[in-house]
Amino acid sequence: MDLTTTSVNMKDFGIELKDVQQAHERVKRHTKITPVMDFDYFDNKVSCKLYFKCELFQKTGSFKFRGAINSVSKLVEKEAPTDNVTVVTHSSGNHGQAVALAAKLCHVKAHIVMPSNAPTCKVNGVKGYGATVIHCFPSERAREEEADKVIKETNGCFIHSSQSLDVIAGQGTIGLELLEQVADLDAIVAPVGGGGMLSGICIAAKSIKPSIKVYAAEPINADDCARSMKAHKLLPNEKTPDTVADGLRVSVGPVTWPILHKLLDDVIVVSEEEILDNLRLMLEKTKLLIEPSSAVGVAAVRSSRFNHLIQEQNLKKVGVVLCGGNIDISKLKAILK
Amino acid sequence: MDLTTTSVNMKDFGIELKDVQQAHERVKRHTKITPVMDFDYFDNKVSCKLYFKCELFQKTGSFKFRGAINSVSKLVEKEAPTDNVTVVTHSSGNHGQAVALAAKLCHVKAHIVMPSNAPTCKVNGVKGYGATVIHCFPSERAREEEADKVIKETNGCFIHSSQSLDVIAGQGTIGLELLEQVADLDAIVAPVGGGGMLSGICIAAKSIKPSIKVYAAEPINADDCARSMKAHKLLPNEKTPDTVADGLRVSVGPVTWPILHKLLDDVIVVSEEEILDNLRLMLEKTKLLIEPSSAVGVAAVRSSRFNHLIQEQNLKKVGVVLCGGNIDISKLKAILK
Repeated sequence: MDLTTTSVNMKDFGIELKDVQQAHERVKRHTKITPVMDFDYFDNKVSCKLYFKCELFQKTGSFKFRGAINSVSKLVEKEAPTDNVTVVTHSSGNHGQAVALAAKLCHVKAHIVMPSNAPTCKVNGVKGYGATVIHCFPSERAREEEADKVIKETNGCFIHSSQSLDVIAGQGTIGLELLEQVADLDAIVAPVGGGGMLSGICIAAKSIKPSIKVYAAEPINADDCARSMKAHKLLPNEKTPDTVADGLRVSVGPVTWPILHKLLDDVIVVSEEEILDNLRLMLEKTKLLIEPSSAVGVAAVRSSRFNHLIQEQNLKKVGVVLCGGNIDISKLKAILK
Repeated sequence: MDLTTTSVNMKDFGIELKDVQQAHERVKRHTKITPVMDFDYFDNKVSCKLYFKCELFQKTGSFKFRGAINSVSKLVEKEAPTDNVTVVTHSSGNHGQAVALAAKLCHVKAHIVMPSNAPTCKVNGVKGYGATVIHCFPSERAREEEADKVIKETNGCFIHSSQSLDVIAGQGTIGLELLEQVADLDAIVAPVGGGGMLSGICIAAKSIKPSIKVYAAEPINADDCARSMKAHKLLPNEKTPDTVADGLRVSVGPVTWPILHKLLDDVIVVSEEEILDNLRLMLEKTKLLIEPSSAVGVAAVRSSRFNHLIQEQNLKKVGVVLCGGNIDISKLKAILK
């Protein structure tokens, strides 16, 4: 990777730092500047200092609100009056909740297609924000087909959870905030599903600080990003991955892939056991309830692979994105040993 | 209550604002300035704005570290060299952990007497900081007798969890921080056990802002403070109270009673069911794992009694102290419905 002239590189993607900065200006009255926390516990266990960016405290309980409110706000800027505007998406939950709240705040209608195995807390969240929920078979294809149908019926605008430049720009505000909140950050680790958040973070963080490393954390059972990076070719998961990290079952797509391929420094894969162990560990040691997708990032920075990277790259200060905290309490109960 | 000339009132207690300020200077290199968090969820449910002071993120997982490190630091300032200094206390857990870590940081020995029913996580915490644990029968009397024995054997200095002016001054730093972190605070609600934290908060907050209200939150099953306030006479619990809030089983004592009697505005009692409901609610809605004693404060501000106070006293901004987050994961599992 060569990032000596970052602005040139970024422009190839159709999105660059100024888009993220504009998103930040657009959404800042709605989003929370989520806290960055550090914990003594990790100081003795991991040989670099970890800074946790707590998106579990973002509105709707996950980072997805950033991209959703940027997209819906931008849409509303263009389409006034908004009486007949409807937004549509498909989502396992967090993006759906985010679009639902964004639509509510911008006074437009929302229809959310959700797989039948989405966590109850996420389905209830979407309904709670006043959006219409349409259930579908839990496969990427069924979700897309059902969403297409709803778009036609409602004449709605589709907001993809990760393959939309406005969504990517919104998620990128995490990177802006993190670099402002923590001085001299050497690296950022964030989970990868569709890659919207990670793409936005790469663009924001590497434009501001070209030397920063950005690493993806991915369940080994949904390792499309790791396989794609190795093959230098987009290789989506062939079927819906069997992972507890419900937010990461979706694959990297055509918009995020070129960004990640160019800018990502590495992918760290973790097992289902590591995900659950780290969810429990975070609850016990940091008092934070995170969802399994967030635990993927924690598992990554506690892995031997990452310990090797710490030494090799001389990483002293590492940001870890806790992407969300939406987990059914009944599921949590089953996870607790 | 008449607080027109606060300084005169405070001096009667043997502790005043400057003691809390000195404690703050003494301990600030060791303690964390814990975050104050607010959550959208409560904005629609409680008719004032709630600001949660997150002592669950304090070192050792509870506010107790503030008082312990103030006491041990002050002791060490006086007693150099410290090779032969031993500190002793009895504690159901949080104060024990706090004294253990404070002793470790000040390079002195610690012996902690703990009731046999103390939560495992708290016992392990104490041991983890290198202190010696002595188990005893779970009654206040047995704890005191065992501690007396250990003091004689070790020639140790006793640090009471609440009836020590240095401990009260240390806990009072919560009040200093809270008034600095939240402008125009109208009231503070904090749980009461021995009353050390609440006394310290009363002294700090009411000295700085005489008009501020301070309310105690107490389990109805351990309502010595409520009964004492009503009778204008210290009425300790006659036997160990049967409450899930293990940190609040201890009674208000002779040092904290005059302070609370003079300065406390009211006591709100809550049921065991309310405590558990609010522990679950906080986990689900705020992603914070709090211990039952913390949930007592949350239950109080969500009670109809407090809603009445909001109207009556025109409370707009209320601080709620989440005093700690130390709960056994096995216990949490049983609590989750």
